[in-house]
Parts: sequence; structure tokens; C-alpha cells
Amino acid sequence: MAEHKVILVLGAGRSSSSLIAHLLGQAEAEGWEIHVGDLDLAAAQSKVGDHPRGVAFALSGSDAADRNARIERADLVVSMLPAFMHVDVAKVAIAAGVNVITPSYVSPEMKALDADARAAGVLVLNELGLDPGIDHLSAMQVIDDIRERGGRMVGFASYCGGLVAPASDDNPWHYKLSWNPRNVVLAGQGGSATFLDQGKVRVVPPHRTFQTLTPIEVEGRPYDGYPNRDSLGYRELYGLQEVETLVRGTLRSSGFSQSWDVLVQLGMVRDDATLTWPDGVSWSEWTRSFLPADAERGQDVRTAVGKVSGAKDEDLDRLAWLGLFDESSGPTRLTGTPAQIIEDLVTEKWVLGPEDRDMIVMWHRFDYELNGERKAMTSSLCLEGKDSVFTAMSDTVGLPMALAVKPLLAGDFGTTGVDVPMSKTYYEPLLKGLAELGIRFVETEVDVA
Amino acid sequence: MAEHKVILVLGAGRSSSSLIAHLLGQAEAEGWEIHVGDLDLAAAQSKVGDHPRGVAFALSGSDAADRNARIERADLVVSMLPAFMHVDVAKVAIAAGVNVITPSYVSPEMKALDADARAAGVLVLNELGLDPGIDHLSAMQVIDDIRERGGRMVGFASYCGGLVAPASDDNPWHYKLSWNPRNVVLAGQGGSATFLDQGKVRVVPPHRTFQTLTPIEVEGRPYDGYPNRDSLGYRELYGLQEVETLVRGTLRSSGFSQSWDVLVQLGMVRDDATLTWPDGVSWSEWTRSFLPADAERGQDVRTAVGKVSGAKDEDLDRLAWLGLFDESSGPTRLTGTPAQIIEDLVTEKWVLGPEDRDMIVMWHRFDYELNGERKAMTSSLCLEGKDSVFTAMSDTVGLPMALAVKPLLAGDFGTTGVDVPMSKTYYEPLLKGLAELGIRFVETEVDVA
Repeated sequence: MAEHKVILVLGAGRSSSSLIAHLLGQAEAEGWEIHVGDLDLAAAQSKVGDHPRGVAFALSGSDAADRNARIERADLVVSMLPAFMHVDVAKVAIAAGVNVITPSYVSPEMKALDADARAAGVLVLNELGLDPGIDHLSAMQVIDDIRERGGRMVGFASYCGGLVAPASDDNPWHYKLSWNPRNVVLAGQGGSATFLDQGKVRVVPPHRTFQTLTPIEVEGRPYDGYPNRDSLGYRELYGLQEVETLVRGTLRSSGFSQSWDVLVQLGMVRDDATLTWPDGVSWSEWTRSFLPADAERGQDVRTAVGKVSGAKDEDLDRLAWLGLFDESSGPTRLTGTPAQIIEDLVTEKWVLGPEDRDMIVMWHRFDYELNGERKAMTSSLCLEGKDSVFTAMSDTVGLPMALAVKPLLAGDFGTTGVDVPMSKTYYEPLLKGLAELGIRFVETEVDVA
Repeated sequence: MAEHKVILVLGAGRSSSSLIAHLLGQAEAEGWEIHVGDLDLAAAQSKVGDHPRGVAFALSGSDAADRNARIERADLVVSMLPAFMHVDVAKVAIAAGVNVITPSYVSPEMKALDADARAAGVLVLNELGLDPGIDHLSAMQVIDDIRERGGRMVGFASYCGGLVAPASDDNPWHYKLSWNPRNVVLAGQGGSATFLDQGKVRVVPPHRTFQTLTPIEVEGRPYDGYPNRDSLGYRELYGLQEVETLVRGTLRSSGFSQSWDVLVQLGMVRDDATLTWPDGVSWSEWTRSFLPADAERGQDVRTAVGKVSGAKDEDLDRLAWLGLFDESSGPTRLTGTPAQIIEDLVTEKWVLGPEDRDMIVMWHRFDYELNGERKAMTSSLCLEGKDSVFTAMSDTVGLPMALAVKPLLAGDFGTTGVDVPMSKTYYEPLLKGLAELGIRFVETEVDVA
């Protein structure tokens, strides 16, 4: 009998659940061993359980020698480590002739390894999660199809959000956390958003991101999209140099962004000043710190926030639900940035309970010309999670990578180097595999008469 | 005859003019040689001229050996290099037992040299320019005096601006550039401003900085102050733990900040996205990039900016004067951040001409209790430059350092270590010397009945 192939999974956090479960499920039939390492041995053990083809081990935070030896002995590495660590993993893997999969954006340092990877005949396949990942696969399939039919792309818009399933939606923000709360708090602050709108470049500074909303309906439910940082780069990445409109963004349930903008306007989610608030400070007093003295003094805090920010009643209701106007409770952390204190707050308030289910919504719109006619279509995905472990987030981040393991080991993709999954060789087998697992896009013609 | 003492001045840029001229003027009487080095030899030569006690030399950008040898041979070093380079200079100087003066804020790396400097008996005296520098000297003299009279500090506010002299003020912004234009464009964006206002901490995010204005009148002319990044740290630095109000900020002529806020709101001064605008783009089209499509299409650009930002007519007049609505001219640089393109524009429009004079305005307000009575006073400085070389900026940045050379060489300060000039040993001789050079503060009692 042939020796088992070793799939090395580095990182066993929240987003690795579905990936590891799917690999273990295939292991017997495919002749694989799944070795799972994490800084936290218990996390790795809980993902592997007592599966006969699974091995859990502890990653060392300070000593890379054991990790590197494991990479060298593996047949394929899936790196779920923090994004900045992928390059170190890839260097070792390339030198050892081992293929690598990551769910993260290709950094310039990663891109620089392309020639080495090609020379070694190794494929380092990145951006194979949800966003980036399924967005590339699903968008490029439609774009290629439009072109094969003789169409010319005119516009492309793409939005994605990690949300809460309607059955578990019991708060006025219509939101719970299925991923890193810090990223939610700092959303939109990474840099001005740039996109293309009917032939013109548009620039939106971070403080106007949540005011730049596009209403989008998916499966009958209302959402708002706000623009992500860099959409212009996708002209080249997706080969869309000819389009007049190109925007990528994030989806939230209708109302969320308008109310979150109140926190943005007041400066409550800034991470650029560390302060110490007095012992015993209430949320109401904390909130007052972000208001001008002449606006808040002698005023009810809710009224004052409304006057300063122009917030509507529904926005103030959402802030009240978070507890920001409470007189009787306050932040537990007294020294920190405003963003850190809000992160603590939403981590508690927006928790995805054990029985809660999350939901992924992805929505693309393609505008094109075909036979002299202007046409448009949408392609969308709504996927609910099973529970708070096998979330839709975990499925959509992990399953594309899990599905890529078999063809990659077999050499079926026919590619080497540092690559991203934007061509048919990737999207055809991977979208087929995802559909078999229930992750299916729905395409709809749009009337543009 | 005793050997000459060597004063080594590193950096001969715009702010070094008055410093070097003053040192050369004293050199004969004091037995000094003034050695001036710059990356640009011509800059050093132009500052030294043919003065018999002056030596100009070229600093190497890549090789520190010559610079270090010069530091070791000097009797005192004045570092006018970019702030991040002071630590390297100080390390060499401390090892060689040579005193150092800089005009820059003490970085954590500089602070870490304190024990070494003390052990070597060396004084590294920082924050000895205008702001920081003259602000410390002039504020601490009044604060100490109030306390010596038995008073208790209740509030402190301090604002400073580098502006244009009234006789040279011929534009609607009432502003010309006497220092680094990049810092003017990025003003207020370094981080949220934090200050203390009647007993309460206030936090102002960068996009609201130019909306948080305090009107201030100095010598009959109207200004607005906006808060600098960190005022709270001055509780400890100035020993003001007991005050209820503490704010430090920047002064601009009335109207400037309100109009600059329009550029801030639109995102035109953000440095966090690099774009390429099409060849031949006009300023008007460039400005439209910062407006939402539905707000600008079919609208005159000035009208659209007004609607989107809420700008008043006087603000729109100022933007028009900068040329931001021009149809027939456009940016010369087509690839860059919005901030870089605005920097090019204001560098041209706000140029301090050869015949123009700049003006420094500094204003402090002290609130205190004395004998059970609430009192207040202001202390202010208005200083006009001589021309575009010997600017008020160059005088106020350079002369405090020039005046510190003699007492430092004589050991009159009686201090060692990494220090800042906040005590009587510094402010008494230095403010006296500045007054003799015409740099005088005017104190005024304020009626707080």
C-alpha cells in the first residue's frame, strides 16, 4: 500500500473548522494524513478529535525549526497563520519543493517569491478563501462567460458581508460577529476608498465611507454596500480595463452603516490616541468625551449625540442598544484607544451564541454589451452556517482551500509560481466542488431598459 | 591665545539662517569657530558666506564617519537635521563628552539616552526652537510666577502659528508658507486630538479638528485655534495635574480653518491612496473626483462642492482662489496621493515671496486662583520677519538655540542628561536674551468677573 500523503494545516482558529473537518472526511478515501498545528495545542486537538487520520501538534511561537521541519516533510501546506507569516512558510516550502495554499491577499513580499516558486516547480496558491477567494472564482466565471458569448464588460460591482442568519437576528444592528471584531471596528479606516463610477475615478476619505452607501437587495432582504479601500486595482487583476464602473465593497444589513457612521463621526472607533478615563466612568460619560463641551453640557446624552452627529432616532436606538448612553455601567478597560473600548463592547453585544447561525452574503453585478444591446445580470450567494463552530464564514473561507488540495496534489491545475485563482483552471473545478457542498450562486438577469 | 571653541551646526536649511548668523556674529567676541555642514554644500556655504570664523562643509548622506569625527572634535553640536537623526548624533556626542542642542521633541529613543548622558556629564538639550521651545520658556515662566505669588493654576491654553505679516497678506486665506508645506497639508491628521476642557477629557477625531475652533484675538487681529494632537501629556510635562482645562493648539487667521475644513471633508488632503488621474485633467475635474457622482453630475463644480460640504460662499471663494474650480489648468503631477497634489498647489499659491515677511503669533492663557479670587491673564508674542530668509520662523526657531550656546559651554545651566527647557535655569537667561533681540511677550490681565 502506498504511503500516506501528509497535508499540513498551520493554524486551527475559528476559520479552520470546516477546512479541517472536510480534509479529515476525505483522508481515508484519498490516503491522506491531516497534521494540524496551533500555538494552542488544545485548539488543534479539538479540531482533530480522535480521527484516525488526524494528528494535532503544538506550534512554537519562538522556534521555527520544528515548524520548518514539518513543512519540509509535508506533501502540501495550508497556512491559516496570520497573513504576515505566510511568506516565511512559503520560503521554506519552496526550498523543499512543497506546494502551499493560503486564504490571504498576495503581499509584495509574497509576489517576490514567484520566480523562485516557478523554478522549484511549486505552486503557492493564495486568495483562496471567501473574500478574497470565492469572489474571484464566481466573478471570473461570469466575466469569462460573458466574453465567450461575445459580450463586452461595461461595469462590475461586487459586495460581500459576514452577517447573521435571519433566524438568529435579534438585535437592531442585524449583526453578530463571525470573525475578528477588531477588523469590524476599524473597517473603512485603512485608507481612502477609490473606485470607478461611470467613467470617473471617485475618492472617498475614511470618515465618509459609511456615508457612501449603495442599497442592494439579495433574496428579498435589504442591505447597504460601502466601498472597500482599493477597487481600481481590480481593473488590472480582473482584466477589466474597459469598464466604466468598478467597485468592490462590504455588505451590511440596511441601517447598520448609517448608524455605525455616528460612531465614526464622533471619533469613537479611532485607534490613534490612547487615553485613560477616570475610574468608575459610565458609558454615558465616556460618550460625552466625544462631544464638544458646549453641545453636551446640560443636555441629555442621547439628545446631545443626535444634535452633534445628525443621527436619526433609529440610529440613536442602536447606540442605546449597545449601551453607549448607560448611566449605571461603563467600560471595563479604562486605558486604551477608543477603538479598543468599542471592540470590547461589541465583542460582548454582538456575540454569536452557541445556537446562533451566521450568514454570508456575496453579490456581484455585471453590466455588459452584447450584440449592441446593454445588458446586466447579478450573481449572488446567501449561505447560512450550521452553528457557531461550523459557521458559513468557516465554510466559505475553508472549503475552497479544502477542495483545492486534491487537484493540487495531482497537478491538475497545471500552474506553478505565486498565483491567485482567477482563471478557468481554478474556478471550474472549485465552483463545481463548492456547488456539491451547497455553496451555489444564483444568477439573475437585470432589466436595464 | 586660547584655542577657538568649535560649534558644529549640522543642517543649513531654511530654519538655520538666524541661528548661524547669530552664532557667526558672536564668534569673534566669544572665541568660537562655527562649522556648518549640509548635504547640500552650497546651502552651507550661502549661510556661512566669507565669514572668517565660519567653515562650510558637505555632509555625506551615506557615510557617517566624517560627521562622527567632526562631532567628536567639536565643543558643542547643534543638530538641525531631520528629527529622526538626532539620536545617532547624540550617541556619538555623548560617547565623546560633547553637549548637544536640538529644536525637536524628545523621542522615546532620545529619552533612553538620559542615563548615558548623565554618566558622561553631557547635556542633550532638546525642544529649544519655537514650538516646542519658546512655548515652554514663556509658559513656565508665568506658571512659576503665579505659583510663587501663592496662586493655584486652574487652566492653561496655548496656541502658536507661523503666519504672514499683515503688510504681506494679499490672499483670502491670510496665509503664506514659512515652513514645510507637507506639514501644513497633513496638519491635524496625525491622530485624534485629546485635551482637557473644564474637568473633562475631550477627544476629537482628525476629520473634526478644523471644526473644533477657538476664536482668539491677538494685537487686535482675529485668529482661530484648533487643537493639537496630545494636550493631555502636558499635565505631567508642565506639572499641571490640578488644572481643569488644558489645551495646546495651532493658530490660523480667522476663516482659514473653516475653509481648510472643506478640503478635509472632501478627502483632498488624505495621504493614504495613490491614484493616477487622466492626462490633461483640469482642477475642476480633479475636484469632482471627491464628490459623489449624483451630487456633481450636471452641476457647476463650485455649487456641487458647496452642496456636498456645506461650505459657505467665503469658503468657496478661497477654494476658487487656490484654483480648485479651474477648467483650463490642472495638476502637473498626475500620479500621487491627494495630499501630494494639494501640497504642489499650495507650495505655488502660498509662496512667501522674496519681499514678503512672515509672522509668528504665540498666545497663552493662564487661569488661576489667587487669595480666593479667580483670575486670568494672557501672554502673547507677535513677531514679524525681516524678509524671506531671515523670517520670524527662522528667528524664533534658531535664536533660542543660539542663545543657549554660551551658557551651555560655560556650564551655567548646571544640568546634564537628556533635558527640555522647562525650568528657571533655562527660561530666565534665554527669555532675557530673546527680549534683547526683540522677541518679547506681552502680558495682559483678563477680566473674569
